[in-house]
Amino acid sequence: MDMLLYLTPAFGAVALLFALNRARFVGRQDAGNERMVEIAAAIREGAMAFLRREYSVLAVFAVLVAVILYVANLGGGTELVGLSFLIGALCSAVAGWFGMRVATAANVRTANAARTSIAPALRVAFAGGSVMGMSVVGLGILGLSGLFLFYTRVVFGADADLQGQVLQVLSGFSLGASSIALFARVGGGIYTKSADVGADLVGKVEAGIPEDDPRNPAVIADNVGDNVGDVCGMGADLFESYVGAIIGGMVLGVAYASELGADPMRYVMLPMVLAAFGIAASILGTFAVRTREGANPQTALNLGTLGAGVLMLAIAWPVIGMLTPEAQGALYGCLVAGLVVGAAIGLITEYYTSDARKPAQAVAQASNTGSATNIIAGLALGMRSTALPLLLIAGAIALGYQLAGLYGIALAGLGMLATVGIQLAVDAYGPIADNAGGIAEMSELPPEVRQRTDKLDAVGNTTAAIGKGFAIGSAALAAMALMSAFQQQAGVGALGLSLGNPVVLSGLLIGGMVPFLFSSIAMQAVGEAAFDMIKEVRRQFKEIPGLLEGAPGAKADNARCVDIATAAALKRMVAPGLMAVLIPVIAGFLDKNFLAGLLAGALVSGVLLAIFMANAGGAWDNAKKYIEGGQHGGKGSEAHKAAVVGDTVGDPFKDTAGPAINILIKLMSVVALVIAPLIR
Amino acid sequence: MDMLLYLTPAFGAVALLFALNRARFVGRQDAGNERMVEIAAAIREGAMAFLRREYSVLAVFAVLVAVILYVANLGGGTELVGLSFLIGALCSAVAGWFGMRVATAANVRTANAARTSIAPALRVAFAGGSVMGMSVVGLGILGLSGLFLFYTRVVFGADADLQGQVLQVLSGFSLGASSIALFARVGGGIYTKSADVGADLVGKVEAGIPEDDPRNPAVIADNVGDNVGDVCGMGADLFESYVGAIIGGMVLGVAYASELGADPMRYVMLPMVLAAFGIAASILGTFAVRTREGANPQTALNLGTLGAGVLMLAIAWPVIGMLTPEAQGALYGCLVAGLVVGAAIGLITEYYTSDARKPAQAVAQASNTGSATNIIAGLALGMRSTALPLLLIAGAIALGYQLAGLYGIALAGLGMLATVGIQLAVDAYGPIADNAGGIAEMSELPPEVRQRTDKLDAVGNTTAAIGKGFAIGSAALAAMALMSAFQQQAGVGALGLSLGNPVVLSGLLIGGMVPFLFSSIAMQAVGEAAFDMIKEVRRQFKEIPGLLEGAPGAKADNARCVDIATAAALKRMVAPGLMAVLIPVIAGFLDKNFLAGLLAGALVSGVLLAIFMANAGGAWDNAKKYIEGGQHGGKGSEAHKAAVVGDTVGDPFKDTAGPAINILIKLMSVVALVIAPLIR
Repeated sequence: MDMLLYLTPAFGAVALLFALNRARFVGRQDAGNERMVEIAAAIREGAMAFLRREYSVLAVFAVLVAVILYVANLGGGTELVGLSFLIGALCSAVAGWFGMRVATAANVRTANAARTSIAPALRVAFAGGSVMGMSVVGLGILGLSGLFLFYTRVVFGADADLQGQVLQVLSGFSLGASSIALFARVGGGIYTKSADVGADLVGKVEAGIPEDDPRNPAVIADNVGDNVGDVCGMGADLFESYVGAIIGGMVLGVAYASELGADPMRYVMLPMVLAAFGIAASILGTFAVRTREGANPQTALNLGTLGAGVLMLAIAWPVIGMLTPEAQGALYGCLVAGLVVGAAIGLITEYYTSDARKPAQAVAQASNTGSATNIIAGLALGMRSTALPLLLIAGAIALGYQLAGLYGIALAGLGMLATVGIQLAVDAYGPIADNAGGIAEMSELPPEVRQRTDKLDAVGNTTAAIGKGFAIGSAALAAMALMSAFQQQAGVGALGLSLGNPVVLSGLLIGGMVPFLFSSIAMQAVGEAAFDMIKEVRRQFKEIPGLLEGAPGAKADNARCVDIATAAALKRMVAPGLMAVLIPVIAGFLDKNFLAGLLAGALVSGVLLAIFMANAGGAWDNAKKYIEGGQHGGKGSEAHKAAVVGDTVGDPFKDTAGPAINILIKLMSVVALVIAPLIR
Repeated sequence: MDMLLYLTPAFGAVALLFALNRARFVGRQDAGNERMVEIAAAIREGAMAFLRREYSVLAVFAVLVAVILYVANLGGGTELVGLSFLIGALCSAVAGWFGMRVATAANVRTANAARTSIAPALRVAFAGGSVMGMSVVGLGILGLSGLFLFYTRVVFGADADLQGQVLQVLSGFSLGASSIALFARVGGGIYTKSADVGADLVGKVEAGIPEDDPRNPAVIADNVGDNVGDVCGMGADLFESYVGAIIGGMVLGVAYASELGADPMRYVMLPMVLAAFGIAASILGTFAVRTREGANPQTALNLGTLGAGVLMLAIAWPVIGMLTPEAQGALYGCLVAGLVVGAAIGLITEYYTSDARKPAQAVAQASNTGSATNIIAGLALGMRSTALPLLLIAGAIALGYQLAGLYGIALAGLGMLATVGIQLAVDAYGPIADNAGGIAEMSELPPEVRQRTDKLDAVGNTTAAIGKGFAIGSAALAAMALMSAFQQQAGVGALGLSLGNPVVLSGLLIGGMVPFLFSSIAMQAVGEAAFDMIKEVRRQFKEIPGLLEGAPGAKADNARCVDIATAAALKRMVAPGLMAVLIPVIAGFLDKNFLAGLLAGALVSGVLLAIFMANAGGAWDNAKKYIEGGQHGGKGSEAHKAAVVGDTVGDPFKDTAGPAINILIKLMSVVALVIAPLIR
């Protein structure tokens, strides 16, 4: 068992080495002609500048919180929670920084490789995505298991109070990860959508120039946005989910082991160890991702992720049997249940949003009678699409609990995230291919290059939809696990948690309101930031002579647009971020039962809103693409105009507010978990 | 005390006599010229025909459910719950039928009175609204207290098991009221919005003819819709709220009395007796509603409702003191808290939706950049507007509980509804004035007549907004009271209700999903029904020669449109209605703790969605009106077109799905309460 404890960080280190190897592979590729290098440099500069400025803000926040945590826990034996917090925040930041750095190198190299053919382009783009995926899991496991070793072997000793001290202190790591994730998601989401809407509304709609046209001053900002939002934001998001699911399971392992009369240490270690073996499965999976010219790259991606999943299932059985033989069948069952439910939610997501299916096609059909019917159809679709996922999540909770108590629920959540290394690689590969297309367009490469990158981008969609299912499902289960962990650590008895207790019910109502308020603030932030961008683009078209006509000397001031998006995102991420951190603190110091109710309320309405927004947004997007494919009059028809309205409404839904809610519900639970000893 | 028990139904009878008196007053007025009489007859015929067909469907449903209830309770001593159910359904149906009958007589007489001046028109319209208001409270109190007397004095005798038998059987009355209400609200909502959207989209937008133009074949259906949706649907809605709040309080009174060691009978009677005195206050209030030419009719309405409220507060103190002296201060405090919270929610509603305030004006401003930004702004506003009401509702729950336990929460809810007699009179007066305007237009009366009816219609808005606040607040508290009553009757212990119990949490998640699914189905029904209507109006314009040009012989086939709306509404109200009834039954027979969680989840997400939809819809509506008032380019501008899209999206939000959710959450709780003995 001791060997496993030391082996776990080693798996993390291997993931990081593999990430380095992939990064060097990307770096060795040719970046193409001078124009391409110039554009790529502008995108990279913008993205890294945003990250530097974002991290300077967050560093102040992180140090402040770490000090507060240290001081508040003084004398309680849990002061080091401040240290865990800082390291968690740092690991998340480093993973985001490294992943995005390589992604902004991979984009132009993917474009250049696509000049030859699709197979090498896939290799480069996927290698870029793998860096993000492996950095996240590597730093997650290395940080967590390293700290665990440090606390059990050095600080507290082997006889320490596992639940009350070690795990309580360790939970700070999850808080660090979640705080950074929320700010990164919200900030990145505001950035990417304000640039996107600004570029589209003035460029495509008002000036009538194509997408990614170099004359449009917001176009670089738009490409930067893809990186800070879809690559870095998503990386931080999954880092947070991963860590949260593991720590939730670790805390709940103690109580479950004592129920079985077994050694708690082994149940605490299991989630970490499973995640470590998941890294191995993910790395092996990436080797399956290669394609030949003419073959469908989709097959390669499916083979990689499915292969990793199957491998994980094969490894998990003996690992569980070795570590926790008393409950081998039950715990394995939870893992499988989580995987099945996650995949099913993904398929349902795909059903409701794919342009090859009836629901999104019905939204396209509704566009024939105008924007209003398009919007109503999309909203109704989003609301309806919550039904099956909620039944599945509730089913996973019930089944997990039946098999192995609260610990079982945590393991089901972990099942969805075990192979997050390769899932995230696929997720991050999409925006890299997308960026490559933008660079091809801006540097005026031949059209077949863009076609190849578009194909690469498109094939990631189904795999990404499944990934979204895992993200939503695991968020619900991880939040539930963290909430239960909080209840145990704060000593909230079953009676105090009763729905018959109006304090709990008040909490439930107010908690339910939080995701609504949060979404509103995030959506409004996008609207305001986009408005700043629109004004700037209009100004440049008006004041820079010859810009719109494409005169040789006229150059758009891209840097100014990048600056505006950066400033807007940084300014507007603060309120929603602080809100998520402060509300549980205030609630907890008022009454711990009130806080328990609040977390449950936020969980319920948060999961619902997140699914509603993601699917409505996805369906609007694909309904528009379906019409652009030639249905209902195709591009330029009245139906298309109506569908564009839906797509624009869907942007802040699916790319800003929706995914941030997934983090919000976990962050609120982690905050509660960390302050638990203070309000016991 | 015995005297009070016999006096209570007498108050109900007085309300009905007053309603008859007002109805005869309306009947005595002149109905105007031949054209007016003809149009009014068409509206009335359409409305009554809809009601007849709706009631034939519901009669089958009601008899079926009554038999099931009787059989399922056989041998348990609670068989008569079937009888209570039938009488509750009948009372609701009769109140709706009578109120709408008089409303469809009052509309044309209001139009005719407005040919002279505004003061007599107000008198007629308000008298028409008063019939609905007084029928609802009269039949509510008469039915409830009559059954209560019958059960305690005749069937079970004075020594009966008050909680387990009498109140359990009586709860069927509430179930009858709620079932009819949900079908009436959903059916009426689908009817009115499909006719409205159909008439507007083809008439105003496509053909470019004015609103309420007699050439438009859907215009009569539109006016019928105002009656079946806004008059009859709302009447059934408030009947249900009123009865639910009273019965919830009665059931919870037993446990509270036993805590105090007091006589339970007195605590059970208090909600009924307070409601009875509320009738007296409402009737007196109506006498204050009269205005002189030149004066603002708003003042008269405010005076009436405020006067009734103050009167109620003055009467309540001695009544509580006489009946339940042990808890006079506490219970009075709950009543006042409910009134204050309800009024505050109303003012917040007004703040977020009025075109004189910043939020709706910001939505109008966002229309300048197109429909997408208008929609995003409206959605964000709706989400944000949930924050304060939820805090207030949670506060009322906490305060009510602090003062007088669960019983206190029920009394706070009742406080908002005590003067529902006059509140509903004001609510129903709006559509009567609106209809009068339509009739004036269609019979080509001079423009000043329409101006007067428009003024009458507009002044009801603020009072109606406050009424909406009461409706939302009381729905939340009444649902909470009914849910607690269910928990007591089903013997769900505090432990079984724990949020630490995953069965409860699964219920919470699935329950939270129900209002989303329900809203989706209702919105889709409106969309589909409107589509049928659009096709029919287009067909008539195409196939009836000379209709669009206004040729003398060409007559629109109004009856066909009325038929289409009727058929569509009846067909499409079934699924959402049955869903609301069946889900709690299925959940309850699976596991009573699961059902308890499900009710709480539905309460949380239901209250949130209801406020979100009502306020987003209201703000879109008023943003459009604000622009029509000359801002941002006024009527016909691009901003106006964008605002029309928002308004159309808002229609099914605020008039179909939103208000139906208020009923849904209570109906689900009442179903649970009624089946409680079967799943104990």
